[in-house]
Amino acid sequence: MDHAQKLAAIRSLMKQQHIDAYIIPSSDPHMSEYLPDRYKCIAWTSGFTGSAGTLAITQDFAGLWTDSRYFVQAEEQLEGSGFALVKLQVQHAPEYADWLAGKLPENAVVAFDGELTSVSLAKVLINKLGPLRADVRGSVDLLTPVWENRPALPTAPAYVLDETLTGESTRAKLQRLREEMKKNRVDAHFISSLDDLAWLFNIRGSDVACNPVVLGFGLVTVEKAILFIDRQKLQTEDRRRLADAGVELADYAEARRALTHLEEGTSLLMDPKRTCFSLYRAAAPSASIVEQTNPTTYFKAIKNPVEIDHTRNTMVKDGVALTRFFKWLEETLGREPITEISLAEQLRRFRAEQADFVGESFDTIAAYRAHGALPHYKATPISSSTLQSEGLLLVDSGGQYTTGTTDITRVISLGNITEAQRTDYTLVLKGMIEGSTVVFPSGTRGYQVDAITRKPLWDHFRNYGHGTGHGVGFFLNVHEGPHVFNTAAVDIGIAPGTITSIEPGVYREGNYGIRIENLVLTIEIQDTVFGRFLAFETLTLGYIDTDLVDKALLDLKHIDWLNQYHVRVYQKLAPHLNEEERQWLAKKTRSI
Amino acid sequence: MDHAQKLAAIRSLMKQQHIDAYIIPSSDPHMSEYLPDRYKCIAWTSGFTGSAGTLAITQDFAGLWTDSRYFVQAEEQLEGSGFALVKLQVQHAPEYADWLAGKLPENAVVAFDGELTSVSLAKVLINKLGPLRADVRGSVDLLTPVWENRPALPTAPAYVLDETLTGESTRAKLQRLREEMKKNRVDAHFISSLDDLAWLFNIRGSDVACNPVVLGFGLVTVEKAILFIDRQKLQTEDRRRLADAGVELADYAEARRALTHLEEGTSLLMDPKRTCFSLYRAAAPSASIVEQTNPTTYFKAIKNPVEIDHTRNTMVKDGVALTRFFKWLEETLGREPITEISLAEQLRRFRAEQADFVGESFDTIAAYRAHGALPHYKATPISSSTLQSEGLLLVDSGGQYTTGTTDITRVISLGNITEAQRTDYTLVLKGMIEGSTVVFPSGTRGYQVDAITRKPLWDHFRNYGHGTGHGVGFFLNVHEGPHVFNTAAVDIGIAPGTITSIEPGVYREGNYGIRIENLVLTIEIQDTVFGRFLAFETLTLGYIDTDLVDKALLDLKHIDWLNQYHVRVYQKLAPHLNEEERQWLAKKTRSI
Repeated sequence: MDHAQKLAAIRSLMKQQHIDAYIIPSSDPHMSEYLPDRYKCIAWTSGFTGSAGTLAITQDFAGLWTDSRYFVQAEEQLEGSGFALVKLQVQHAPEYADWLAGKLPENAVVAFDGELTSVSLAKVLINKLGPLRADVRGSVDLLTPVWENRPALPTAPAYVLDETLTGESTRAKLQRLREEMKKNRVDAHFISSLDDLAWLFNIRGSDVACNPVVLGFGLVTVEKAILFIDRQKLQTEDRRRLADAGVELADYAEARRALTHLEEGTSLLMDPKRTCFSLYRAAAPSASIVEQTNPTTYFKAIKNPVEIDHTRNTMVKDGVALTRFFKWLEETLGREPITEISLAEQLRRFRAEQADFVGESFDTIAAYRAHGALPHYKATPISSSTLQSEGLLLVDSGGQYTTGTTDITRVISLGNITEAQRTDYTLVLKGMIEGSTVVFPSGTRGYQVDAITRKPLWDHFRNYGHGTGHGVGFFLNVHEGPHVFNTAAVDIGIAPGTITSIEPGVYREGNYGIRIENLVLTIEIQDTVFGRFLAFETLTLGYIDTDLVDKALLDLKHIDWLNQYHVRVYQKLAPHLNEEERQWLAKKTRSI
Repeated sequence: MDHAQKLAAIRSLMKQQHIDAYIIPSSDPHMSEYLPDRYKCIAWTSGFTGSAGTLAITQDFAGLWTDSRYFVQAEEQLEGSGFALVKLQVQHAPEYADWLAGKLPENAVVAFDGELTSVSLAKVLINKLGPLRADVRGSVDLLTPVWENRPALPTAPAYVLDETLTGESTRAKLQRLREEMKKNRVDAHFISSLDDLAWLFNIRGSDVACNPVVLGFGLVTVEKAILFIDRQKLQTEDRRRLADAGVELADYAEARRALTHLEEGTSLLMDPKRTCFSLYRAAAPSASIVEQTNPTTYFKAIKNPVEIDHTRNTMVKDGVALTRFFKWLEETLGREPITEISLAEQLRRFRAEQADFVGESFDTIAAYRAHGALPHYKATPISSSTLQSEGLLLVDSGGQYTTGTTDITRVISLGNITEAQRTDYTLVLKGMIEGSTVVFPSGTRGYQVDAITRKPLWDHFRNYGHGTGHGVGFFLNVHEGPHVFNTAAVDIGIAPGTITSIEPGVYREGNYGIRIENLVLTIEIQDTVFGRFLAFETLTLGYIDTDLVDKALLDLKHIDWLNQYHVRVYQKLAPHLNEEERQWLAKKTRSI
């Protein structure tokens, strides 16, 4: 079946079931960003492979709503699918719901699969379609009947991480969680989000690409902690370790039954953004649901000293791989053909040589010239450019190590740089330094650091459309909440122990893109009469191309920072490099 | 009756009516910040005269919950009242509700006067007391029965402002409002907030101190616009002008009846933050209430060209008054005794000499030495200091003119300044300049400007506990929503045409306080490929004491800004000053 046939099949089912509109979100029952193949519904239905988007289908129209990062890609991939691209005004906003509300007749029937829709989103849909008196059905799966050989759930092995890596036992984590539950007066807590689960139970796996998580659910009460998981994934030894930590194992599919069988009146904590509507409804008749962010989301964000130590060491390994990669690139360019795809493969190889490497933390963005202007570009065999000895190359990549997660972006000159590129690059660097060196009182929110990072760009009438930074996990998801540095009104104070990226950029459509990204750790630096002050320790160790720097645009403090950073990069990486590599890095990290 | 007796009388009524806890907020039926005497319930009950606070009374405890601005004042004023000060952790947070929730038995009866409680606050109370299964009664007035000679509603005259001042007729404003109502699919809109009412109907009055508003309500439908007001306040001519604009007048007390008599099923827009719970409940049985910010709140915030022109001119008048005031102070200090109170009176006199002056826009904060460390200090006959020829004097004041509203803070040296004071002052100035000169893309929120303003202070481990700036009305409230520059997650973009203050500070408890405040107008400055960029035009014209500036702490751009600002202050004010005043101002505005 091609995409047009799939669309026709879905529409035919809609007709049979008297459904006026069907919505297909990009999600799984765990509200994941990275999806197991079974849940790549949008790609299967429409051909679009971007990580964010929603399909909405009526008999007259079928659309993919996605944001500016994916406009070019979506136009290409939707060709002939029967789906039209609808450009989102605001990233992640459910604008298709407004469209449906304006388009559908009164009393229309709107349906979606409640397994793929968060409680929050379902409520927004129900609200927005309220004035229509629409019949909103939250448990309609139209894909399985038409999806031949739909992939089964993944069965990759999972394992328990040692406390020497995690720094805190599952038993201790459960105790902290139970204290928090007590404080919130809840009897039970159901966890759907895979990274929360991985953190709490100190387990990892490879059920999805890039995120080392295992499909599962958790149910924690005062007496019990049940992990719903495909038990086959765990070796006997690990099952025993979980049992020793007070964890009961149950089948993945049993989670729903456990919820429907909760004792009448149980007060149950569920995170409305990270629980699917279907399971929420399963629990609702018996439980009194307290909607709140998973406490583990806050716990997990604050790295413990063991995690921090490992992460610092991991940055050395990652920095060594990056150094070898850029040296290889410089020496190979012009002698062998290098494409964006081969480049990414080579980088993976250098990372794989490092101890404890497990895989990439996201698909490498190797973006040459105009491709750099697409912040989430992923080279395809068709798009993949061959590098020349000119222009800018942007490489945004990261690794998963059992000892931590990395994420770094660098832009290098391949030759023939323009003054405009140099200016843009220097202002991005200036913003990155401003963000990295800010000191701020405890309680400061991410949006305040965001503003300070952007200011050097604003001063020259430049800006970027994405956030300034995201939280990063410890050998977990490279995008980890709840902390974030962006312009949105996310009301959470930056906490000591959190790891976040700082990654301003400038994008010139059809021309080039620049982004420079380091990871930083929030640390306490001074107690004052005005309260405690925090700052960032830069974790990432990778040289920054100084050929692109226009010193005249920097203040002395920025130049000092850059020089000191380069001293540190060299000192930390040199012991792990051979002589030739050391010399090369010394050149790259010379003072300006 | 003294305060202890009043408390006893209230407790006795509580017993009779089986009320376990009674809450007295600081408000009126219009959710005003400045209250008519009739609604100064907290002052009457407890003696506390601060502008923010809540009383909660049980049989065992009576407390005033207020924020750090008022701790010192509250301790003094509550002495012997039977009320204890409870220090708020977070400004304006209903922490007394949490206290009650933790303290009261199950099924307790909690009561408040729904006329003095917003819909939002009432819902928070009901929610927080939910776990107690409390009986929350929102229509209990225990004060009127015990308040002998409770003041009647004010009867000050009101008047219609000419379109030459307002720049937009009531008819045109009503049309805009009705278009917005149509967009939101509402049939009717009820307005309680007095500044929204004053703006929409182009009326002003003096029912409360400092805010030139009139007590009233508004009800707007497609066909009708009814202003509920004490008609005696308006002259025949003004009543005719309102009638000509399509406005029907009705008695103030008729508003409730109008709400209870709405046609069944009317969809009614009410602002839950600016409507009292009592009137909300009056409307609820028949109307379907759409809770949303009053559209006029957004309209009003964006000043039209006529308002902007008037405001610019008003700044000249205010600047002349300030110049004369500071000159008088310099020449009088040491020759005649000057107290904080006499200082404020003298400033009022200089303002009153200016054309179109109506009154002060808030109570002048004239705060000498340690008093400056109390951001909202108001001198009382007991506290009022006599000025000496040393230390810092902070003067935060503003005027209401029919041509605009002003608000300016300056700190001057009276002699013998320490290096620490100079450093603090210069860093505050630097922050003020950073905030005033920022350029930013359309869509930027106030919290982003807040961060940029604070950064120079953060860089030196200093901070201030209040917001960076507030919206300011046009011949209306000096605190005007919805725009605000502070650390809170207020999700609204800074819009061209809005007037806001920028007023960073540093406060050294028991020692001194520094704050420098200008009003700025948001303007459009450049369209770019990254979107439209906005900036601020500084409106306030008043010299900044350069004796306190440590140039070494400023960058060239800050010094340039200060010198250019002083050139402008001189150029704008000089034509309105006599020769002696001009010479004095020339000296004060000399380049550094």
